[in-house]
Amino acid sequence: MTGSTRAVVLLSGGLDSATTLALARARGRTVVAVTFAYGQRHDLELRCARAQARAQGVARHHVIDLFTFGSIVAPATSLLRASPHSVPREDPTGGIPNTYVPARNTLFLAYGLAVAEAASATEIWIGANAVDYSGYPDCRPDFLEAFERVANLGTKAGRAAPDGRGIRIEAPLLTQTKAQIVALGLELGVDFAQTFSCYDPVGDDPPVACGVCPSCRIRLAGFARARHPDPLPYASRPGNTSNTS
Amino acid sequence: MTGSTRAVVLLSGGLDSATTLALARARGRTVVAVTFAYGQRHDLELRCARAQARAQGVARHHVIDLFTFGSIVAPATSLLRASPHSVPREDPTGGIPNTYVPARNTLFLAYGLAVAEAASATEIWIGANAVDYSGYPDCRPDFLEAFERVANLGTKAGRAAPDGRGIRIEAPLLTQTKAQIVALGLELGVDFAQTFSCYDPVGDDPPVACGVCPSCRIRLAGFARARHPDPLPYASRPGNTSNTS
Repeated sequence: MTGSTRAVVLLSGGLDSATTLALARARGRTVVAVTFAYGQRHDLELRCARAQARAQGVARHHVIDLFTFGSIVAPATSLLRASPHSVPREDPTGGIPNTYVPARNTLFLAYGLAVAEAASATEIWIGANAVDYSGYPDCRPDFLEAFERVANLGTKAGRAAPDGRGIRIEAPLLTQTKAQIVALGLELGVDFAQTFSCYDPVGDDPPVACGVCPSCRIRLAGFARARHPDPLPYASRPGNTSNTS
Repeated sequence: MTGSTRAVVLLSGGLDSATTLALARARGRTVVAVTFAYGQRHDLELRCARAQARAQGVARHHVIDLFTFGSIVAPATSLLRASPHSVPREDPTGGIPNTYVPARNTLFLAYGLAVAEAASATEIWIGANAVDYSGYPDCRPDFLEAFERVANLGTKAGRAAPDGRGIRIEAPLLTQTKAQIVALGLELGVDFAQTFSCYDPVGDDPPVACGVCPSCRIRLAGFARARHPDPLPYASRPGNTSNTS
């Protein structure tokens, strides 16, 4: 790796993390990407994460197996349950969505921190967004600030920094709307055909985004507002996508 | 599980975590124990963790596979390197020991938090100790307090609690000496023959504690000061164990 600032980027294969990675690269970071496999119902996200890592020239890409985690928390989240169509088809209402996965971002950031310290990286970039899914407790600014404190108190690298910020949590999309994220990604050259956001894909060979789960609706509305076509195929599309977020 | 307070206990198979578990049980907690397998050089600790979980009547025991984590952080810690005898044979000097594993307790607590939330447990007990290994950044009170804040901001259960402490991190041994921990464990009936603390065991069938690594020295000195024989066999013992901590 070069002498530039090293950053760990949490890369899910979704639109937000692909854009976050592009931003880290545009700002000159040498990137170690980290992707988690935890029993999502399909491996499309994983394939997209690999494609993004390759296309965006990361220095390393770790795929971390969290299947035990997935099996332990599955009863507590609709995202990981075996039965299809248990994902809500309505838009989030402002409460904590039932797609919430217990302690997910805490665990992802903890892994990111371990990888960062082992690779002498000083930043952890995460595509957390507090606008579209304001209900997730672990996507809010106060949580991310608290985790940065943990990162600096709990590591050798953090304790060694005189200003107490040897490790920084970077969440550049935190207050962006989906339309702004789409526009930013396009500007940075992200290939959105190689991203996947659907909670409940249809079919198997290959699966196609459903077009109606909350994640698809928010994505489609974001592209509509950014006045750009979403390159992904969809099984169906809501009648008026611009009305749904 | 019963209506008593539910607690996750991080159980390594060492002396401290076995005593922590005994304390949680003595205080009436219904316990979900969590043990991590991350490429330690031997599985004796794991066998001890299982024995403790069984003997102490935990409601559930999850063993979580962290081998990917182990392989990623191995170059950064002597504890996980393949070559034998790379573990320091001297006592800790007050700096951060080279047995430090990047972000270990952050990751362990993050898993504990996920398990806790999925099991509706409100406490996470950890045998962290700031006396014997004062060099570890992730065994200090300020780190544990910061993690409790993360736990409460980053989870549904934590956000729901009116006092901001829906999840508590309990580290009852934090300021105890090893002799005090030994005495407490004996009082609570912990079978210390089923604990293992050595960094660098000797032989294979079965491996025996070396008696000279920092962890063995501190343990032996603790038993000596508690005026109780350590039931473990050792390959060798320092001339004067009471002088080493």
